[in-house]
Amino acid sequence: MEQQLEQLYARARTHLDAGEVAAVAELLAEEHPSLIADLFRSLEAEERVALVRALDAPLAASVLCEIDDRGNEEVLSVLEDGEVVELLDHLPSDDAADLVAHIDPEARPRILDLLDRVDHQDAVELKELLRYPEDSAGGLMAKEYLSVREDQSISAVLPALRQLEDEELSSMQVCFVVDRDHRLVGQIPLLRLLLSDRGRKAHEVMEADPLVAHVDDDQEEVANLFLSQDLLSLPIVDHSGRLVGRITVDDAMDVLSEEATEDLARMAGSSAVELGETSTWRISRARLPWLVLGLCGELIAAFVLSHFERNLQDRVILAFFIPLIVATGGNTGIQTSAIMIRRLVMREFDTFRAGRALAREFSVSLVNGALLGATMVVVLYVWQGQIDVGIVIGLTLMTVVFLATLTGSAVPLLLDRMGIDPTVATGPFITTTNDVIGLLVYLGIAHWLLTPS
Amino acid sequence: MEQQLEQLYARARTHLDAGEVAAVAELLAEEHPSLIADLFRSLEAEERVALVRALDAPLAASVLCEIDDRGNEEVLSVLEDGEVVELLDHLPSDDAADLVAHIDPEARPRILDLLDRVDHQDAVELKELLRYPEDSAGGLMAKEYLSVREDQSISAVLPALRQLEDEELSSMQVCFVVDRDHRLVGQIPLLRLLLSDRGRKAHEVMEADPLVAHVDDDQEEVANLFLSQDLLSLPIVDHSGRLVGRITVDDAMDVLSEEATEDLARMAGSSAVELGETSTWRISRARLPWLVLGLCGELIAAFVLSHFERNLQDRVILAFFIPLIVATGGNTGIQTSAIMIRRLVMREFDTFRAGRALAREFSVSLVNGALLGATMVVVLYVWQGQIDVGIVIGLTLMTVVFLATLTGSAVPLLLDRMGIDPTVATGPFITTTNDVIGLLVYLGIAHWLLTPS
Repeated sequence: MEQQLEQLYARARTHLDAGEVAAVAELLAEEHPSLIADLFRSLEAEERVALVRALDAPLAASVLCEIDDRGNEEVLSVLEDGEVVELLDHLPSDDAADLVAHIDPEARPRILDLLDRVDHQDAVELKELLRYPEDSAGGLMAKEYLSVREDQSISAVLPALRQLEDEELSSMQVCFVVDRDHRLVGQIPLLRLLLSDRGRKAHEVMEADPLVAHVDDDQEEVANLFLSQDLLSLPIVDHSGRLVGRITVDDAMDVLSEEATEDLARMAGSSAVELGETSTWRISRARLPWLVLGLCGELIAAFVLSHFERNLQDRVILAFFIPLIVATGGNTGIQTSAIMIRRLVMREFDTFRAGRALAREFSVSLVNGALLGATMVVVLYVWQGQIDVGIVIGLTLMTVVFLATLTGSAVPLLLDRMGIDPTVATGPFITTTNDVIGLLVYLGIAHWLLTPS
Repeated sequence: MEQQLEQLYARARTHLDAGEVAAVAELLAEEHPSLIADLFRSLEAEERVALVRALDAPLAASVLCEIDDRGNEEVLSVLEDGEVVELLDHLPSDDAADLVAHIDPEARPRILDLLDRVDHQDAVELKELLRYPEDSAGGLMAKEYLSVREDQSISAVLPALRQLEDEELSSMQVCFVVDRDHRLVGQIPLLRLLLSDRGRKAHEVMEADPLVAHVDDDQEEVANLFLSQDLLSLPIVDHSGRLVGRITVDDAMDVLSEEATEDLARMAGSSAVELGETSTWRISRARLPWLVLGLCGELIAAFVLSHFERNLQDRVILAFFIPLIVATGGNTGIQTSAIMIRRLVMREFDTFRAGRALAREFSVSLVNGALLGATMVVVLYVWQGQIDVGIVIGLTLMTVVFLATLTGSAVPLLLDRMGIDPTVATGPFITTTNDVIGLLVYLGIAHWLLTPS
């Protein structure tokens, strides 16, 4: 399959280089939007615009939604208002709202007004969705759902159901059941509905009190709910329990994947915006703060070392093992914090287990610290014939492994309790802290144990 | 919701401590398996066994599947063969196969024989699934699917469909269409099927040539297919194109989540087995290899430094900035490799873009290296009044940032091309390599530029 893809891309590339945009559009007409999006990511802005104009509006709209990066802003700023409205008009409400977010804020009211004249209902729904923060359940949900009043017979849903196109149908898993005030009271899986006697009332067939999420809920929590409860669809309600939208499993999966990328990038001291970014300056700007933070931390480390100048001068062998001490502390800290943070992100914690996890981390750190420390005593004796320096390094490693475990496990837990995203505590931040602490311990022990030679 | 959970767990805990297992079972009878699984993870082995026996068999079976960790092995080894068979008999085939994997290999044939006598069909399907590697599409798929021959009318599916219970129904999205040799030729979304005229032939209504996966395909590739194509269900075929099973979106989502955890853990120099692990020794064993690898690498670093003993003795100030040099190289390497690897894992790469990404990484490294280097020249002059040492450190930082980018981006790409999982290239491995290279550069430049004071 990958070979076929590369061939397709190569053919598209050849046509594009020859300026044959219509031929590319024909070549891609039957392909899945995600596949075309992958091609788009390698194109220049003008090529993207030309291709968006050449593709059918529904397909072009889906492709832009798949891409969902800064490149879209350039494309949308070049297109005419009418062209943008046509794209929006072909998208489900949740995707349309995501696309509007890429439109220049100054042009937004103008385009929404134009959409209002083309399709009033769409414009009203879109404006509602735009009110919710992007990373909330409200920002993720779509307005397209089926609902029936509890006292209606289920046959009332059939006309709406029959009108749906195949693609819409595949994202409709359930029919929601509401009361007279549009408050959610239950749901009926559509397959169950179609297999039931058409004359029965909705409230007789429904599953009462289904799982719901609130418009203000965090999108990551909602996605984890899909993961743990194997959901296909989730109704979203407002403050008074009224049904306002629904989220489907494909959107939840996208959120999980985005969040995993974001956590990874943040742990590495950067940001996931990088993935869709092509400007050297912007990538550089995403990474520099962490590098500079690291630099400042390591200047403190240099200051600590300069304080022990005499000891280093006296026994320059101590300097040889500075990288070993800081690297072991750094590695231990990252091992501990990565596991701790993943548990926190996955919500695999309850009150009693946080204590157990901490206790376990500490026993692991004692075992590993003792093993590594003992190894270094032997190595130093064999290599340099120095038993006293070996003991200093061995003791330091034990202490450093223990302290790095303390920062690596306790800091994320504390941040989480304080309501701060624990992923900020990793990567450069934990490493730098451990470096400074490790060097203080190392030269402190050396100062205390070694007599001047 | 989290508060309610904690209350529930606290009540369960109180009952358990009083030895009232039946009361706990009653308390949990209506809860979702994933929620009970979360409670199980904090229990001792004997408590788990008692609770498995007290819960209804279908619920207990689902709970064990949710847990899916080493704790299950202990539980299954304590249960009678007949009890294990009853659990297996209540599970869908894919979950049953996962559970069998936790049974002691010696007991497995005995239990499968017993299951064969209770439910021959189940046992045959289970034995088939057990033949596939756990991380392949075959190992992930289930045998429960609906199919119809292309020349049959779609009403032929209705009796089977009506027999399904609610839970089974919710995981059936499509009816597969096969030819006389059971080769897959198409699929019909069940909602479309129920809305169509019952007398029509399957081949008239079906979507021809649907996306398929092969039994041998890697589970991560399959899961990425669900993510990129917004699938709910995917048919699995064997070498001759015959339909042998199906994978549903909830299983794909579990794979994505597991793989994200595994990638993160591996980048941190550990393994995701940790998350379900409670033994200090086993966690210690998962982490030690990376710590020891790091230690060996840093011993090489110590060896490099010892080679420059004279230079360090002469200008001990050089030792102060060792942590700064290695940390900056390490941070840059991790920033670069994390982003590169995430792109590779997400398959967001094609041939032309790998080159562009590399070029971008290098321009970012030149910008960041130059900025950091220039900063250090100024800092050194202000702090220590030494312009020559400042220039050494500045030049070193520029070189180190560039080289760390080279290893951080090229090594994962190379490994991926060679068919090796690129995540092994990160964490301790990249950091240690960068440390050794960085120190060689640092003291090499110092040796070359600084005259003995």
